[in-house]
Amino acid sequence: MNDRLERIENALLNSIPADDESIRTVLESMKYSLTAGGKRVRPVLVLEFAKLCGGTEEAAMPFACAIEMIHTYSLIHDDLPCMDNDDMRRGKPTNHKVFGEAAAVLGGDALLTLAFETALSEKAAALNGYEKCALAGRLLASCAGAEGMIGGQIIDIESEGKNAAIERLRLMDRLKTGALIKAACLLGCISAGADDVQKKAAEEYAACIGLAFQIVDDMLDVTSDEATLGKPIGSDAENEKSTYVSLLGLEKCRSLVAELTDEAKKSLSVFSGDTSFLSDFAETLRDRRK
Amino acid sequence: MNDRLERIENALLNSIPADDESIRTVLESMKYSLTAGGKRVRPVLVLEFAKLCGGTEEAAMPFACAIEMIHTYSLIHDDLPCMDNDDMRRGKPTNHKVFGEAAAVLGGDALLTLAFETALSEKAAALNGYEKCALAGRLLASCAGAEGMIGGQIIDIESEGKNAAIERLRLMDRLKTGALIKAACLLGCISAGADDVQKKAAEEYAACIGLAFQIVDDMLDVTSDEATLGKPIGSDAENEKSTYVSLLGLEKCRSLVAELTDEAKKSLSVFSGDTSFLSDFAETLRDRRK
Repeated sequence: MNDRLERIENALLNSIPADDESIRTVLESMKYSLTAGGKRVRPVLVLEFAKLCGGTEEAAMPFACAIEMIHTYSLIHDDLPCMDNDDMRRGKPTNHKVFGEAAAVLGGDALLTLAFETALSEKAAALNGYEKCALAGRLLASCAGAEGMIGGQIIDIESEGKNAAIERLRLMDRLKTGALIKAACLLGCISAGADDVQKKAAEEYAACIGLAFQIVDDMLDVTSDEATLGKPIGSDAENEKSTYVSLLGLEKCRSLVAELTDEAKKSLSVFSGDTSFLSDFAETLRDRRK
Repeated sequence: MNDRLERIENALLNSIPADDESIRTVLESMKYSLTAGGKRVRPVLVLEFAKLCGGTEEAAMPFACAIEMIHTYSLIHDDLPCMDNDDMRRGKPTNHKVFGEAAAVLGGDALLTLAFETALSEKAAALNGYEKCALAGRLLASCAGAEGMIGGQIIDIESEGKNAAIERLRLMDRLKTGALIKAACLLGCISAGADDVQKKAAEEYAACIGLAFQIVDDMLDVTSDEATLGKPIGSDAENEKSTYVSLLGLEKCRSLVAELTDEAKKSLSVFSGDTSFLSDFAETLRDRRK
């Protein structure tokens, strides 16, 4: 796992264009957030599903990098003063606090753009063929766009201070977090040329861990502390946001996460290969402290 | 020409996801700017080069829409308070003035994402094949990213109040405006399966009209009026921006634009088809009043 994480970090770093004095600000903005030490959940899922379906890490790596770039850009833009107005992220000042708002907007834009350049790159095409690259890019775009992640973000913004009902919260999370988790699992399948049964199982696994992931996020905002989490806790309550905790209570959340983790593990039964990593991964996400 | 513009408008409008109450704000933000009556220079170039190289308008249309979406998103983000802070665009209030900053950031993000979804769509692939779609997406990303349009924007921002030299102005424009104009001409070539000689000629044409376009823009900021231009004039001087006019004077600009237009027309000589539209188009851009 640690070797793989290191290879992901290297691939991400190598994807950023070479230093150029005239555009240095935007390159530094991109690099700062892309290498800020995320958990790399999405790229790990891409690589593991590729392996499980008979593909190679090398071929899936451009897709893994692309999805992490999209995740990172979304965090930069979410943190902006006109959005969530957050000063800290992963224990470090947010992008706009370091580079200013303009460079944060542009750095995010550039990472989103670089995601597609990476997924459609000469290297990606040589390893996967044009069809898989085009399908990967299409999936990334549909999961990250207005009917996916961005749609979830607008629902999130418009729900603040409104005590949204559980149905709205589910829709928001399915779009805001769920769509990219689903894309991650399917990107691995695409790279490996998986069949429909495998893709369906990957989607089920993604739906379960995606929801569990979000519920755990809400729980940590209540039960963790700022030093562990790398950002202030209690922000949901402060922003008058409905969360799974505020709607269902901590106990119910805990049992729901346990159920979803079990379901995620069960969905892996269709694969003939070694699914222990993905089983353990679901448990790691369940038990995480940050 | 008018029929074609109407088909472009229809294709753009039809590309936006169907109305959905829960994400309506971001859909309206996208639609507002995408249908705000631009000149559609880039999609027209895509379609005309496709036709000139033996392709079809139908096959090139998804690429034409994609590049206009990228152009539109860049205008939305450029107008933001943290960037150029403009209130008016094409005679209408800018996106953030209507929808607020958060929806403007997200609407721009969603248009950029939709550009790739459109270029890689099922329809685009059925008409062009996966290879051309992947190459089109790759070209769009490289021309729109940190080493293209976004790089030009960061240079622009960092040059304000600094009386930049002509070399820096050239670099900025080559990236900020030139990269997308080049992409437009080449996208038409890609859709039509043009050969290298044709692609090189398309790039030369693009370089000439791209630079001429930017010089005319600078001239109009001095010589036009707000009612004709649809936005306040004199903004470059106000922002202490170096422009071709401030560096070279109006007369020199005028003769430069004339030379570039002639060069653009000459570059079309390699094509065996009817190049009168592209010749006239170069002249139209030279003579435009807004």
